[in-house]
Amino acid sequence: MSEAGFNNWIERIELFLNNALITDDGPTKNLLSAMRYSTLGGGKRLRALLVYAGGGICNASEQHLDYPAAAVELIHAYSLIHDDLPAMDDDDLRRGKPACHKAFNEAVAILAGDALQAQAFELISSAESGITAEKKIAMVDLLAKGSGSNGMAGGQVVDLEGVDKPMTLQQLQTMHNMKTGALIRVSLLMGVLCGDKVDDQTWSALKKFGDKIGLAFQVVDDILDETQTSDNLGKTQGADRALNKPTYVSLLGLSGAKQTAEKLYEDSLACLDSIGHNTATLKQLANFVVNRQK
Amino acid sequence: MSEAGFNNWIERIELFLNNALITDDGPTKNLLSAMRYSTLGGGKRLRALLVYAGGGICNASEQHLDYPAAAVELIHAYSLIHDDLPAMDDDDLRRGKPACHKAFNEAVAILAGDALQAQAFELISSAESGITAEKKIAMVDLLAKGSGSNGMAGGQVVDLEGVDKPMTLQQLQTMHNMKTGALIRVSLLMGVLCGDKVDDQTWSALKKFGDKIGLAFQVVDDILDETQTSDNLGKTQGADRALNKPTYVSLLGLSGAKQTAEKLYEDSLACLDSIGHNTATLKQLANFVVNRQK
Repeated sequence: MSEAGFNNWIERIELFLNNALITDDGPTKNLLSAMRYSTLGGGKRLRALLVYAGGGICNASEQHLDYPAAAVELIHAYSLIHDDLPAMDDDDLRRGKPACHKAFNEAVAILAGDALQAQAFELISSAESGITAEKKIAMVDLLAKGSGSNGMAGGQVVDLEGVDKPMTLQQLQTMHNMKTGALIRVSLLMGVLCGDKVDDQTWSALKKFGDKIGLAFQVVDDILDETQTSDNLGKTQGADRALNKPTYVSLLGLSGAKQTAEKLYEDSLACLDSIGHNTATLKQLANFVVNRQK
Repeated sequence: MSEAGFNNWIERIELFLNNALITDDGPTKNLLSAMRYSTLGGGKRLRALLVYAGGGICNASEQHLDYPAAAVELIHAYSLIHDDLPAMDDDDLRRGKPACHKAFNEAVAILAGDALQAQAFELISSAESGITAEKKIAMVDLLAKGSGSNGMAGGQVVDLEGVDKPMTLQQLQTMHNMKTGALIRVSLLMGVLCGDKVDDQTWSALKKFGDKIGLAFQVVDDILDETQTSDNLGKTQGADRALNKPTYVSLLGLSGAKQTAEKLYEDSLACLDSIGHNTATLKQLANFVVNRQK
């Protein structure tokens, strides 16, 4: 699939999210507006792309894939809202706009995150998706584990508590596997779940592929945080360094971090060898993860 | 069922939650400890009781009911953690102990709430429960809707934005139906889902019963907030008045609020008339909701 294919999927998910996140003039107007504000109109949609690409491995219908793709973007959006809060990373800029708690207020931001998490699970359970109950519940399980205390939320605690403390490369990797990697892997696997059943070997190869690109994503994030401008990133450049958080760059240097990203990219491609069919799009996504400029 | 029956269920859910909320000495120790701290050892467990009582209507097994009962208690615990945050109600006391953000810190409290929400959905999807996928996904749908922007989180925004503003009785009722009522109704209905299928008339009668006692619960909460001590409540007495939030007492006076609670209790019992069997426990729960002293 070409870059244009990715763009089609991005347009598709933007439209779906736009329809899913309704607003009205009722008493919850601010909450609904904050949910839209922080989810729409920005972001790479990497997690949604992974859902579609995962489904592409095994003939899943895009109409089915829309639901987990949107769900994982809602989880991601909620995590960014909460991460940016003053009690957390205290960052005022996100996707080139004021962070949710600046555009609205802290209370609305906390609750918008909470409600987005609930809506993610509501989307997975939606009767309209046409997905079987067995597949839906397997997705709920994956998504809940990927975003909970053993996944994203757990990783965020380790991240926050790592400020000003030395961390080994192994600890850094464990933290990022939880904080970012888990949801990236889950995105891919939810997509796979929506299609024809894959054999155990393929499932486990895809899981490993997800782990590799999840980690690569974070290594590249650390590199971009050092080498790009805030304008390009749409978030505060050098924020991790300012907070004295350990990063791949602080532990390995810029060139060491770049080598690590390259190695993870190679490893991710190797995971796909045993699958052997329909993997072109996943390869392109891995390439996108490693060579992105923001 | 006697009061002793409630106590059996309470012991049952405490044990289940104790086993579900594990801690270890790993990097997420503080997060896991905060999740335990805010969920265990306190609370009326009304929502869990409603799950068990709902299941009792239609022969659900208690082994099945444990999962949604625990899930709804995790959702409730997360909502209390977030409600108490400085950016929200800013309350330092909960269940007679320092609130989560005081016992730990704000970041850990926010993330403990987030992870508890995820774990609630993980419990519903658990392969160990033995519940069918169809029933599980119907519970995910109920729980997500009850806790999201049209339910609990939405009600909390309306509540916060109601500070210092006049509110009609109708607006107050809408707010509480969302903030407290939705999850109470959902608790009952999740229990019902775990048993033999009930007919539409019974389902809708139980829904109405849930709405009535959900609202009664809040009216009584407002009464107790005026008439009890902080020690007895385990939370700061008069907190709503101090925040200048509209309550049933501020709108109707103490005696008007008491009459409203009594009327809702009568109405709730009337909802059960059309069911006619196995409703003794629900009647006792309604009585407990209205006559509780904390």
